[in-house]
Amino acid sequence: MGKNKGLTPQAEDFSAWYNEAIQKAELADHSPVRGCMVIRPWGYRIWELMQRDLDARFKETGVENAYFPVFIPLSFIEREKEHLEGFAPETAVVTHAGGKPLEEPLVVRPTSETIIYDMFAKWVQSYRDLPILINQWANVVRWEMRTRLFLRTSEFLWQEGHTAHATEPEAEERTLLILGVYREFMEEYLALPVITGLKSSSETFAGALRTYSCEGLMRDNWALQAGTSHNLGQNFAKQFELKYLAESGSLEYAWNTSWGVSTRLIGGLIMTHGDDQGVVCPPRLAPRQAVVVPIWKSDEDRARVLEVAHGIARELGDAIRIHVDDRDKMKPGAKYYEWEAKGVPLRLEVGPRDVDQGHVMTARRDRREKVPVKLEELAADLPQRLETIQAELLEAARERREASSHRDVTTYDRFREIYEGDGGFVYAGWCGSAACEEKVKADTKVTIRVLPDEEFLGGMTPETCVVCGGKAQSVAAWARAY
Amino acid sequence: MGKNKGLTPQAEDFSAWYNEAIQKAELADHSPVRGCMVIRPWGYRIWELMQRDLDARFKETGVENAYFPVFIPLSFIEREKEHLEGFAPETAVVTHAGGKPLEEPLVVRPTSETIIYDMFAKWVQSYRDLPILINQWANVVRWEMRTRLFLRTSEFLWQEGHTAHATEPEAEERTLLILGVYREFMEEYLALPVITGLKSSSETFAGALRTYSCEGLMRDNWALQAGTSHNLGQNFAKQFELKYLAESGSLEYAWNTSWGVSTRLIGGLIMTHGDDQGVVCPPRLAPRQAVVVPIWKSDEDRARVLEVAHGIARELGDAIRIHVDDRDKMKPGAKYYEWEAKGVPLRLEVGPRDVDQGHVMTARRDRREKVPVKLEELAADLPQRLETIQAELLEAARERREASSHRDVTTYDRFREIYEGDGGFVYAGWCGSAACEEKVKADTKVTIRVLPDEEFLGGMTPETCVVCGGKAQSVAAWARAY
Repeated sequence: MGKNKGLTPQAEDFSAWYNEAIQKAELADHSPVRGCMVIRPWGYRIWELMQRDLDARFKETGVENAYFPVFIPLSFIEREKEHLEGFAPETAVVTHAGGKPLEEPLVVRPTSETIIYDMFAKWVQSYRDLPILINQWANVVRWEMRTRLFLRTSEFLWQEGHTAHATEPEAEERTLLILGVYREFMEEYLALPVITGLKSSSETFAGALRTYSCEGLMRDNWALQAGTSHNLGQNFAKQFELKYLAESGSLEYAWNTSWGVSTRLIGGLIMTHGDDQGVVCPPRLAPRQAVVVPIWKSDEDRARVLEVAHGIARELGDAIRIHVDDRDKMKPGAKYYEWEAKGVPLRLEVGPRDVDQGHVMTARRDRREKVPVKLEELAADLPQRLETIQAELLEAARERREASSHRDVTTYDRFREIYEGDGGFVYAGWCGSAACEEKVKADTKVTIRVLPDEEFLGGMTPETCVVCGGKAQSVAAWARAY
Repeated sequence: MGKNKGLTPQAEDFSAWYNEAIQKAELADHSPVRGCMVIRPWGYRIWELMQRDLDARFKETGVENAYFPVFIPLSFIEREKEHLEGFAPETAVVTHAGGKPLEEPLVVRPTSETIIYDMFAKWVQSYRDLPILINQWANVVRWEMRTRLFLRTSEFLWQEGHTAHATEPEAEERTLLILGVYREFMEEYLALPVITGLKSSSETFAGALRTYSCEGLMRDNWALQAGTSHNLGQNFAKQFELKYLAESGSLEYAWNTSWGVSTRLIGGLIMTHGDDQGVVCPPRLAPRQAVVVPIWKSDEDRARVLEVAHGIARELGDAIRIHVDDRDKMKPGAKYYEWEAKGVPLRLEVGPRDVDQGHVMTARRDRREKVPVKLEELAADLPQRLETIQAELLEAARERREASSHRDVTTYDRFREIYEGDGGFVYAGWCGSAACEEKVKADTKVTIRVLPDEEFLGGMTPETCVVCGGKAQSVAAWARAY
């Protein structure tokens, strides 16, 4: 892809489009370290805006941030058996430090349950010390063989919440509370509609009792696991001696939860809203929500339009993130093209004739329409217009998802036909056996994303498993997934 | 130290006091990984408040945040010779990942010049791509033999700014601009007065042309290097082929700067303002600026005082960070003690008699005085009172520093006498030779902190070096340092 050539169309090669869209928007870049990415300022600003919003939502539920070491003794990872099996194969290991071999190798954290619950055990004596509600924003490392920017990288940024409770119901309540926080954040902020539900055993977090997940459907009809919330039961508490003196006087193990979302969400954003012109940022997390492009030919016009352009930015600068692209020696068309690729929701064009008529032309990134807005109406109009874009992006994504969601599949032939075609979500009866999951995966690479919460079922009550025809235990939502 | 015993007095053992004050305030804790700390919520909140303020100051100067990999190929570190010598002995090295030995070991970043300028080289073609003004908030690892919470830990959190410029003067201007940003931030926000100036060659950053530093003086009269700003010249640009096409058509190497402050600042804060009761937080970065302690004996009184206490918090909650400590089964005195140790700037006591009289008693953390304030005046009074505390903490720290700053030392005998006594800053003539630095260090463990900017010299113009008696090249500010 040359600097001024169009992107590969999504319909032609979605994967090529994805990589090109990221490069063109300058969201991220490959680093010289295998599988590790560089998040460039435009991409990092999106992450910062996500962090700010999500962090406030956590704090409203009583969560406090903290920071735990990037290194975890290998013996800690080994203590919880399933956890070890899940994470050991993909760890990066420090064997030397300060010029000497280490007595015990240190793992660069792939996730921090072990070291965090070890510290909790030190801090918790009695029921009065519970609950502990902690979150950390951190980098984690999981050595991946096949990597893709944002979606699967050897290092990524995330938040990981870790809590300890006195009772099982409290832990379950927290697990579901956070699942709800995630869903609201994704829908209200990223305009990324998700279905929620329980994971099947085969997709449960290594060491957890139960994993709940938020799953989105991308524009290529592949699903993306966008965030997970785990009820860890007492598994880690027992390995790390996280006990408390109950009010009754007995010594009890605490109940833990953990939950996380990562920079993968930026990948989800790109694949939910992007089009053949590039990235589309929902206004709430657009680094710039509106860009003013002044248009001039003569020096006299230049002065006039720049005055109006900067006047608009000054007037609106407190209400929205607005920028004047006043670069000289660059044609307006080239500027349009650049800001479109970066996904700025609104473009304002100000030429001499617009100045004469006392208006600007506004162009929405998400549709082909230009509307004049009078200068004196901008302050009231633009924030409203951005809210409309935000709402319509969510609605459009939800409609696309529902158009690719199938709730009437009763035979395995029909099931396979769907995944030989456009794919999407198939909601269908499942007998509960891992054998059926394995068969489907082998045949089609499709997996159970979640056993969806009731609101997503549309009242369906299938009686048989779509794979084996046996008695259905539940409804599963199937899809190919990133 | 038991949970309810006082701290070791500062005058008795400053180092013991420091560790106990941190534990008692629950700012941080030792982790099971040698030399790595856990930053607990109260400490992390201070860091977040620092980040928020400093980040805004950076952005005002055009800096954007980004994120680069935690791993750096060993060969990158080896490319800049001085850089290698400075950092290689203290790196942590990943030799295995994904279950296999790596072809090339990866260093966990001790600082990111090398990998960042390698990326800059990819992004920069012409002068139009300059300057690049980047910052990252990240964890870094420097394997330390003797560690102290916040001051010297194997892993710490920091920000590292990295810029590339077309000309040397531009790079020098940026280096000094950031030095000024740091100083303002430290003084206005941390109430930590610092002297600024150039480092001597022996203390210059490994690979830099020039290093400038902000140096504070702690309550034990030891200096703390609180932040540094480096003009890197073209050293890294030459090793990483960071070139640009100049307007003239020639191909030139860019000029770099880098600058950083870290969680060490929290240590500086503790040692600047703390007293025998514990930590003292300047209001601007206090996680809680005021805590209301309701006092009751009967249930009837309890209801009345809690109503008033929560009413105050509701009324002031948007203006200041205020908290009601309404824990049952805990005496007011125990609460006072706890919030004092954590350094909350203002305590409001509300008992039945206060309610009757329509006021609360306000107690400042930084002095022994209690003042009644009428309920209806709180909204105007408290923000003002916090500003006063902020200003007075800075002033008090500056006075302490100046009381321990010596500008009249002309003989080495007197110099040594000072460091056999209370120590502090000695401003004295220096011949410029590393030999004199080494001699002083060997004799007294004292080092040159900076060659101070003129405003700190009080007009002194020494003619001879305080160590060797040779001709003075400049004034140096000496001190024992953390």
